[in-house]
Parts: sequence; C-alpha cells; structure tokens
Amino acid sequence: MPDLPLNLASLRAAYAAGVSPAEVVAAVYRRIEALGDPGIFIHLRPEAELLAEAAALPPFQAAGGLPLWGVPFAIKDNIDLAGAPTTAACPAYAYEPAADAFCVARLRRAGALAIGKTNLDQFATGLVGVRSPFPPPLNALDPAMAPGGSSSGSAVAVAQGLVTFALGTDTAGSGRVPAALNNIVGLKPSLGLISNGGVVPACRSLDTVSLFALTVEDAWRALAVAAGYDPADPWSRRLPLRGPAAPAGRFRVGVPAPASRRFFGDAVQAGSFAAGLERIAALGGELVELDFEPFYEVAALLYDGPWVAERYTVVEPLLQSDPEALHPVTRQVIAKAEGFSAADTFRASYRLAGLKRRIEPLLDGLDLLCVPTIPGFCSLAELAADPIGPNSRLGTYTNFVNLLDLCGIAVPIAPRADGRPGSLTLLARAGRDHLAAGLAARLHAEAGVTAGVTGGATGWPLSPAEPPAAVAAEDEIALAVVGAHMTGLPLNGDLTRLGARFLSRTRTAPCYRLYALPGGPPFKPGLVRSEQGGAIEIEVWALPESAFGAFMRTVPQPLGIGTLSLEDGSQVKGFLCEPVAVEGARDITGFGGWRAYLAEAASPAAAAP
Amino acid sequence: MPDLPLNLASLRAAYAAGVSPAEVVAAVYRRIEALGDPGIFIHLRPEAELLAEAAALPPFQAAGGLPLWGVPFAIKDNIDLAGAPTTAACPAYAYEPAADAFCVARLRRAGALAIGKTNLDQFATGLVGVRSPFPPPLNALDPAMAPGGSSSGSAVAVAQGLVTFALGTDTAGSGRVPAALNNIVGLKPSLGLISNGGVVPACRSLDTVSLFALTVEDAWRALAVAAGYDPADPWSRRLPLRGPAAPAGRFRVGVPAPASRRFFGDAVQAGSFAAGLERIAALGGELVELDFEPFYEVAALLYDGPWVAERYTVVEPLLQSDPEALHPVTRQVIAKAEGFSAADTFRASYRLAGLKRRIEPLLDGLDLLCVPTIPGFCSLAELAADPIGPNSRLGTYTNFVNLLDLCGIAVPIAPRADGRPGSLTLLARAGRDHLAAGLAARLHAEAGVTAGVTGGATGWPLSPAEPPAAVAAEDEIALAVVGAHMTGLPLNGDLTRLGARFLSRTRTAPCYRLYALPGGPPFKPGLVRSEQGGAIEIEVWALPESAFGAFMRTVPQPLGIGTLSLEDGSQVKGFLCEPVAVEGARDITGFGGWRAYLAEAASPAAAAP
Repeated sequence: MPDLPLNLASLRAAYAAGVSPAEVVAAVYRRIEALGDPGIFIHLRPEAELLAEAAALPPFQAAGGLPLWGVPFAIKDNIDLAGAPTTAACPAYAYEPAADAFCVARLRRAGALAIGKTNLDQFATGLVGVRSPFPPPLNALDPAMAPGGSSSGSAVAVAQGLVTFALGTDTAGSGRVPAALNNIVGLKPSLGLISNGGVVPACRSLDTVSLFALTVEDAWRALAVAAGYDPADPWSRRLPLRGPAAPAGRFRVGVPAPASRRFFGDAVQAGSFAAGLERIAALGGELVELDFEPFYEVAALLYDGPWVAERYTVVEPLLQSDPEALHPVTRQVIAKAEGFSAADTFRASYRLAGLKRRIEPLLDGLDLLCVPTIPGFCSLAELAADPIGPNSRLGTYTNFVNLLDLCGIAVPIAPRADGRPGSLTLLARAGRDHLAAGLAARLHAEAGVTAGVTGGATGWPLSPAEPPAAVAAEDEIALAVVGAHMTGLPLNGDLTRLGARFLSRTRTAPCYRLYALPGGPPFKPGLVRSEQGGAIEIEVWALPESAFGAFMRTVPQPLGIGTLSLEDGSQVKGFLCEPVAVEGARDITGFGGWRAYLAEAASPAAAAP
Repeated sequence: MPDLPLNLASLRAAYAAGVSPAEVVAAVYRRIEALGDPGIFIHLRPEAELLAEAAALPPFQAAGGLPLWGVPFAIKDNIDLAGAPTTAACPAYAYEPAADAFCVARLRRAGALAIGKTNLDQFATGLVGVRSPFPPPLNALDPAMAPGGSSSGSAVAVAQGLVTFALGTDTAGSGRVPAALNNIVGLKPSLGLISNGGVVPACRSLDTVSLFALTVEDAWRALAVAAGYDPADPWSRRLPLRGPAAPAGRFRVGVPAPASRRFFGDAVQAGSFAAGLERIAALGGELVELDFEPFYEVAALLYDGPWVAERYTVVEPLLQSDPEALHPVTRQVIAKAEGFSAADTFRASYRLAGLKRRIEPLLDGLDLLCVPTIPGFCSLAELAADPIGPNSRLGTYTNFVNLLDLCGIAVPIAPRADGRPGSLTLLARAGRDHLAAGLAARLHAEAGVTAGVTGGATGWPLSPAEPPAAVAAEDEIALAVVGAHMTGLPLNGDLTRLGARFLSRTRTAPCYRLYALPGGPPFKPGLVRSEQGGAIEIEVWALPESAFGAFMRTVPQPLGIGTLSLEDGSQVKGFLCEPVAVEGARDITGFGGWRAYLAEAASPAAAAP
C-alpha cells in the first residue's frame, strides 16, 4: 500500500482488486508524514475525519459508480471547504465558510476525498510560491528552486504523490507555472467552465479554478466533474465540454517565431522548447510561426495595467485597517492599484480590445497555440535578491492567456538537456479545452510516462494514456460518410473545415446497395437501402451540431442525409442517395465499399473495356 | 415636387416615374429654407455640390440598382463626412476628416446623398438636444418642447421631411428619445452591427450608430446598407442581419409590471403605454409582466457610475487645456469622471455582471421586451430651470439597454389622449434586430400611418408597410416540409421551437411521388423523386443554420433531408423518404399534397373500406 501509485487508473485498479479507501487514506497520511514538508498544507484535515468519510462511501462499482470514488485531492486555500478556514494565505483575512465551493461540492459528491487546504502566494498574487506567511512548500524536484505559484502547495502535493489531483486557481498563470516547475500537468480551463462560487477572487474577470494531476486524463476527469454552469456566479458560462480529442489528421499549431521567443538567456530551455515543437510536428502538427509581439503587449497590460485594481477590491478593507497583515511584497504589488483612475481603466480596456482585434486573425485557421510554459527556472536565491523581477519573467507565456479568453494546459515533455523537467503549454480559444487536452495527452504519452521523468517526483510507472473514446459528444452529431468525404478523398475537407473529427471505420447493416454515380470529378457513390443488399464500408465522423447546417449546404442533389443502420445494430445520420439517380448507374455493392471500388477502378484491369 | 414625400417607397416611385435626383435635391434645399430652423444643421453642404453628386449617379434602375439611389440623408455631427468638419457640437474640438465614416461610405456607395451634418448635445452627452453651443433645433411638433437628444438635429430633420433618413448615435438613448419626441422611428441596432469607424466616441464600449426614418422599412433599409463587419473597429461584431420578421404566431413580450412603471406623474403617458400594449396583445403578443427593478438598477449604474470616464477619455485634453470650450452642463457631467478610481470601475462592472445574471432568466423565453420610449415630455422651460433632472428622467427606459447588450427600436403609435405623439420601444437581445423591427413595422402599420399622426410633422400619406420578403437570410436555410411539419400539423413545433419561420407555400417540380407511410401517429407521408411523378404541395420554412443540426436529430429513419426541385425551377433542402420504406405504402400523389389527403382521410367516405 505505501507504494500504491495514486494516478486514477492505478487507484481504480486497486479499488477493483479490493483495496479499501481507508487504506488509501492511511497511506496518504503516512506519505505526508514521511515527506515532512510543512509548507504544502495550510490546513490538513484530521486523518480520522477522512477515514470516517471513506467509510461512509457507498460500495465501489468499477463502472457506473461515482467517478471519483475514494480519490484523494487537495484544495488551494483560496477555495472554500466547509469545516476548514479559508485563509488565502493571509491569516488576518481568514473566514470559516459555511459551505463547500461550488466545484468542491461537485467533486465530493462524486466520491472524492478532500485531504486539506494548500499553501499559495497570498491572495493568489504571484507566480513563485514564496509570497506567503507560511513556510513555502519545497519544489518537488529541486529544493533550491522556487515551487512556483501562486498554487504552490497544490502543485507540490500532486508532484509528491500525496493526492491524485489538486485544485488551483489561475488568473495570470498560477495553474500552469507551478506545473512546469514540478513536472506535472496543469489544466487551466476556459474561463467560466468551473464556477468561481466559493473562491476568493483575485481578478474576478480573469479568474478560473484549475487542476493539477500527474496525467492529462486525471486532470480531465477531475475537470469533467468540477465543471458545470452555476447561475449564481456571474462569470459562469455554458461552454461545451467534450472528451479530449487531439486534432484529427494534419493540424495547425501557432508558435512564437524564433525571433519572438523569450528565454532570458536560458539556452537549455530554448532547446527544450524547440525539441517539444518537433514532437508536435512528428504527430502531424503544422507549425505556424507567429510574431508574438501583440501577445506580449497583452501580457504587459495585465502586469502593468489597472487590472491590479481587481485585487485591490478584495483586500481594500484590510489594506485600510491593518496593512501589516499583508505580505510586504503582496502589499507593494496590490497598492499600485491606487494609482489607476477609471479613465485609465477604460483606456486599458480599449487597448486590449485593439490587441484582441490584431490577434484574432492570427488565431483564425489555427487549431492550437503552443508556447513554453515558463521561459526558465527561478531559484529561491534569485527571489530573495529580487522578489519582483523573476516573478514577472515567469509569467512571460502565461499572463496574456486569460485576457485573451484562451484555455490551456501545461504538460510535461522530455526532460531538458540538464535534466530539469520540460513543459509545453497548449492553448486554444475558449470552449476548445478538449483539443488542447487531446494533443497534450498524445504528447505526454509519447514523451514516455516513466519514473521521475513525467510524473512529478513520484517515480511511479504511469500507464500510457488511453485513447480518447471515439464517440460523438453531446454537441456533436455522428455522421456516416460512404464516398468522397472519407479520409484522404476529395471532399474530406468539407468535414474537417467545419471542425469534424474522425471517430471510426465500420460497416452498414447488410441491407444497402452502393452505386457509382455518373458525373464527376469528384466521383461519388450513392447509397440506397434495399431489402437485397450488402454491408458497406463507412467512416463515422463527429460533426459539431452547430456546423451541421453549413455542411448541409455543401450536399447537392441527388445526395441527402438520412439515418443509416450499422452492422452493430446502432443508427447514425449518414449519406443516402435518391433512387431515381441510381437508375442505370453501376451497382458496386459487391466491392463492399467505395475505396475497394476505387482501387479496382485505378488498377490496369479496369482500363479494359 | 415641393410636396413629394421623401419616404423610400414614394421616392422610388417618383424616380421610376422620371423625377430626377436633382429635382429632389432642389426640393430638399427649398424645404430647408422654408422651414428656416437654424438649429438643425451644423454644416449644410452647398446645394451645388449635391446637385453635382446627384448628376453623377449612374442611371436609375427600379430593381437591382443601387439600393439608396438618390436618397437624401443627414448625418449627426459626431460622424465623419469627408469634406466637412466634424465638431461633435464643440467648435474647439473640430477636425476635418480625411474620409467618410465606415457606415457613411457604405451609404454613399449605395447611392445615398449626404445633405449635411446635424446638431447634437455636445459630445453626444445628453438626451435633451439643447446642450450645444449652436441654437437647438426646434421640436418638430411643439417648439415649446425639447427636441430630444443627443441626436437632436437628425431626428428633427427626418420629422420635418427634410431627408429620408438620418444617422444618429446611441449610447444611453440618443437614438430613441428624440424619435419619441418628434414622432418618428428610431432604430438602435445591436452593438457592433454598424462600425464605429469614423465616429467620435462617447462611451466606446456602449456606442452605436442609429437610424431615424419615418417608417420602420426605411430605417431598416438604411441599416441593411450601413451595417457590416469592420475589422478595424474592435467593437464591430459579426451579427446576423435578417429581414424584419415579426415573431410568428403567438409570441411573448416582457413589459414592466404596473407597479414597476415610471411616468413621474404623467398619467396621459401611462395611458398611452397601456393602450400600446393592448395593440401588441391584439397582434398575438402574450404580455409577461416583469419586475423592472434590476433594469432600473442597470440604468442607475450607467448614470451614476464610472462609465462617464469613457467620455472623459475623449475630452480630457480639452478639459485640461481649455475647459471653457465645453458646454457648461457637459463639462459638469463629464468632470464627474475624475472622482472614479480603477477599483470603482471594476466594482461597477461586478455589479453589472450580477445584474445581468439576474436579468438573464427574465429574458429567457421572451421574444421581445416592450417599454415606453420616454416616461413623458420635457419642455424647454423645465430644462432652463434644471438642466440635469429632466434629462435624467428621459433616460428611464433607455439607459439600461446598451449595458445589457440589447437592440431596440422606438416606433410611433397612436397619439396620446392629449394629441402628443405616442411611442413604444421594442427591445431584443443582440442579433435579434429583425424581430424588434418586424413587430415595430406591424404596430406602425396598424396604428395607421397617416398625416400628422405617425410621420413626424410631415403630414405625408405614407403607404402601409410592405410585408417582409419571404426569403431565407444568409444565416438561415430554406427547408421544404411536405407532411407533419407543416403549419398546424403535429410536428410543426419541431421547427418553430428552433426559431424557424414560415416563408411560403408552393409546389415541387412535377417529378415526385407522395406515399402515406405506415405507422403513426403522428402520421407521415414519404416523398420520393421519380421520373413519373406529380407536383406536390409543400411549405418552405427558414431554419437558422445553427439550428439545423438540432433539427436533424429529430428526423428518424426512413426520412432524411435532401435537395428538392421546385416548380419554379429553384432547389431547396427538403424532406425525402427512403424508397425501401414506400414499398407497399399507399401512393397518394394524386391528392397533390398531404393536406388534401388528410382532408379526404377525415371525410366520412374515407371510413368506408
């Protein structure tokens, strides 16, 4: 038990084999004791409480049961957990929440076990993890390095294998920077996907809860439970949440052009990023180099602009009544808000609007962006000498993300040449979390999820990522294509252009006839259901429901979309042909599909009359 | 010619009959001279310039030509017209624009003739029309009353019949309040539908160009030309612009509950509003009474909150260098911005976000809102005594609209009991301009568009509204239904629920066979194209393209959507049936359609074997 890996696949296998959640809870507490880092948890719940909670779980069901049954997790201490104080790492600010935060309640209802509240840069203001009156948690891989923040304790708890996942928050990078520094996954969802109900605000207009885990899959499963529309949170949005899905076939990834990359002299980090991009290219990604200047200008707006006044609105009473209660660096940073007027604020919003308009065309036609998560590492010694500058540099590739309404995920890649962890961040427009997570899962699996390399500091042999389930999501329609729309054939672009993704290759029920229609190119078959028929090869694609109408416009007479019966007894929407159009056309049912027919047509024998 | 009404229908009829645009231009200048109100135009272009521009128009084409061929219009003097100074009613601010504003250029390219630049409340700050260093224009109906603002000159120019339409701007009601005070239509589009390129900002985040005209149709036709995405304007949005379409069948209109109505003691205005609501009910509207408190709270935020700092960003240099150059009331209003900090601004944005969240569920399930355009009239004498209070009251029903991202249209209704003009405003969520305009057109036509009643002060006999053209808009797909989806039949709700609207009843080309499918209810026919067929009755509906996928989910085997050929030679998407399903089914082609077959099936004779 002391060696049980806590990634979800291992944990569920252990539960399925009869391990009890009480045993897991006990193991977690022994590990916390063994590690002996007092900086990770601000509040650790008593073990007895957790054991009682574990004992009260309903019986384990391998499938169909609670999705996070018996899964230990940690909570950044700016997110409410009933029964524990919320401090935001400022004891003078602390309060006792009456209820769990919206997302915590969802996770606990799904069977997850909240172990405790973790340390952070005070009021989530910082990217270093040492701006706290509590001792900073130690970086999981090198105690001389900053743990990263602001979600320092949550990231280290995951990296040390104390919990399966942990909640952070992310306004300017707090859910990504510590992931890179501790060699784990940091998933920053689209703004509004997870409710901020019960979360101490940093910048309300830019905040999101985030997730740390050892694998993309684990972060995603926690996200899928935590996410949900909350009418009581004005920033909550109804966004689609599909399963992780790497972009299909060729995909386009925007990256900072070499002249636009900022590593502040860290050539090893530069090399690690370049190597990471090669892996994306090897997976089918076309790298599109962008001038990143407008992104850096957005980042500068956040860093130097009036948004700090959002933080000010949170701490203003304390700043007035008891300024010494704030960490001196935090106080210095937030007090800058007093210099900004309403006019400054609107002027900054105009500047942001202009920058967004410049950036929009850069994003058009891209599936994702890829940036380094951090430009390099930052030691505790450097921070002692200058608490502001290194912190600012850590946000180079994160500060612009929430202002631009992007979602993102930081994912470990192969270690740097000097052995320090490597990390890329994949970014996408809001609502495309599944695309970023899908490619991150492929990169992570490909990097080799092995001891010490890509699992925090745990050394656990993590099983490779399961392939994403090939089913259409709730906001997609499964569509069977039988001819020129199949992969590699001339009309496939009509699907991919609209965001469709490949699901599977299968066959119809044995009751269809296929005909080679006259005309072309593009040459097309026509499928007609018939009492005397065969099973015909098809491809099933997932088309966004909202794009179905646009696709329909591309379908000319005599083709149409009806409902096909498949060989497994299921039904999907799919191409059919009007019977009047197949009169006199060649019946090619015997080929079993359009590809087989095309292969024959292309063979020399076919040239004979 | 001196009596030629300038509404578009009359004007186009005159042009079709051989009147020249030079004659119209001359008539416009004679009317301006005859009226002799020096307060309407800040800059009137020389008549000779207009005559030359009119002479340079390409030949008139009744159909297919320039949509605004030879149509005179006026431009509020905060919108650029090349060759004329833009003053925003502040001579010290004036500049000579090098180019037309984005929307002005579009209108002129469509053949419209820009007569001049009109007076306004300085910097579009006010709802009264008298905060200008130029003499205020006289209210078109009662010179003792305020003309309304800030778009005072544009509204009066239309109401006096000097131009066919005029451009205003609307941030807090400037495109609606003067419409009500001058008995004309004031169309305030969704934010971002018309570019703000070349417009002096008031509050950049809330500004839109607006349109004044004597009829809804005329305002709409100008909008259709002026609207268009402008990548150079960060606030420009890609929003659908369909033709005006009143909500189909029964529709739901939210109205302030009686206890929520604010008329400041004007019982006549209260009665006029109640009578207007009765007309909406008579047209099929279900009135849903709402507690309007949250709307008024939004309005108060705009009036008392930090948004005034947006105006400050525009005039700050002038306020610093030459404060006396500003109108004293304008200066007093805008200087309030100096008291607001960045933190105040974010706090106000949080309050707005919270109010929006409270208002969203009120809007769900409603097609439109209806409010009085103004709570009552306001005399010049009252304004002389108190330049602020009456101005503030005029915005009661307009101030919240742009903050809530609603579109709206002010439309004349029957005169009040005391003979003053009546006016309602219909509001809808952004992108639903066509719904508000559609109902406004019906109300206006129904109110009787006759001399003096609903045509400004012109006394022109305006022709009743033409029915909206029954074609699918760019973001809709025309869909032919042949059976249970037709009007009044069991599955029609599958269409209307998704926002589909009826377009026309017509017939297929004579090459289809119709079968009564087995099974039901609901009973359904199946349409199959065939070389031996008949013309089958169909209904064509316009379905939002984005809803097509959702509709497709409701279509079961053996039905599907293909492309139908119609009797007029056109093609539309429409229902087809798989041939395998009609084997053995009754061929009802001879009935000519499903309704005729149903009628026969319901007759006593059908009961016989």
